[in-house]
Amino acid sequence: MGRWEPGARERLREAALELFMERGFEQTMVVDIAQRAGVTARTFFRYFADKREVLFDGSADLAKQVKDVAETVPATASALDVVAAVLDAVAQLVGDDRDRARARQTVIAANTDLRERELIKQAALTAALTDALRQRGVGDIEAGLAAETGSAVFRVAFSQWVDATEHRDLRDVLRETLTRLRHLAAAG
Amino acid sequence: MGRWEPGARERLREAALELFMERGFEQTMVVDIAQRAGVTARTFFRYFADKREVLFDGSADLAKQVKDVAETVPATASALDVVAAVLDAVAQLVGDDRDRARARQTVIAANTDLRERELIKQAALTAALTDALRQRGVGDIEAGLAAETGSAVFRVAFSQWVDATEHRDLRDVLRETLTRLRHLAAAG
Repeated sequence: MGRWEPGARERLREAALELFMERGFEQTMVVDIAQRAGVTARTFFRYFADKREVLFDGSADLAKQVKDVAETVPATASALDVVAAVLDAVAQLVGDDRDRARARQTVIAANTDLRERELIKQAALTAALTDALRQRGVGDIEAGLAAETGSAVFRVAFSQWVDATEHRDLRDVLRETLTRLRHLAAAG
Repeated sequence: MGRWEPGARERLREAALELFMERGFEQTMVVDIAQRAGVTARTFFRYFADKREVLFDGSADLAKQVKDVAETVPATASALDVVAAVLDAVAQLVGDDRDRARARQTVIAANTDLRERELIKQAALTAALTDALRQRGVGDIEAGLAAETGSAVFRVAFSQWVDATEHRDLRDVLRETLTRLRHLAAAG
């Protein structure tokens, strides 16, 4: 058997999400996920440490991406311009699969451990963005505020995107939400 | 033995924090905390479900307080004015004991479970504030954004207050941080 099986990672992600939705996260075993994806449990463990990690695949890369984007924005950009560029990039990474995003949210919302893991992940991303802004010479407090604001915009926009009756581009919803925040702050 | 012992709750809180700092959270047992506070373990369990809850004492009331404050702000106030009033009230609840706040942060930062519990608590408060704003007739997105913004301001201001070399009033640091956010959003 070859070390890598083409498409296995993606099939495992899909199979896991289906099973979590059908049976619940706790009731789903790694062997069930592997079977549904048409691979062995051994193959599963080549890609993921455990069933929980299937839901958080790619989140380790995300922090790096955030830093990379923050570095490429022109030096003249304001802190919130950097945040806007990062949100654009995140939208691209999340992609267009709203059904998948909705299923993932449903699974996470139903399990305390998963909710905690999701919050820790978000906090780590906010910290990565804060660091990236500091590297650009933004002061500590402004860096923290801008990063936290970006995180706030993401949470509000994401749940709006997932729940909306019409399908919209996540990037557009993020941009619109950031603009709303600006108005809110200016008007308040 | 009487059912309540005067000052026991406060003594238990202090004893727990001291021991967590001295020995670490995991290495501290309920019986140690009770002994240091001069009460029995049985008395401990009258006040707290377990040693973790000593660190989160009062956080259940906090969500209610947030709602109460949000209800008393005049109907003409903007969403961010409500957030500002809530932050003032939270500053009063947190009080003036920066050493205690710093010790608590240190203990929480060193333990993954505690960090997760803290994040869940913050998310619950943000949700409570979002609800309270909705009750006032603020639209869903603005309510979510204003509450998340308040939460962001709190996190940034709180760590600044805790870490600052000079002692400042938490309320003032919160107000100043909210003003900074307004400027950041306007300038961006």
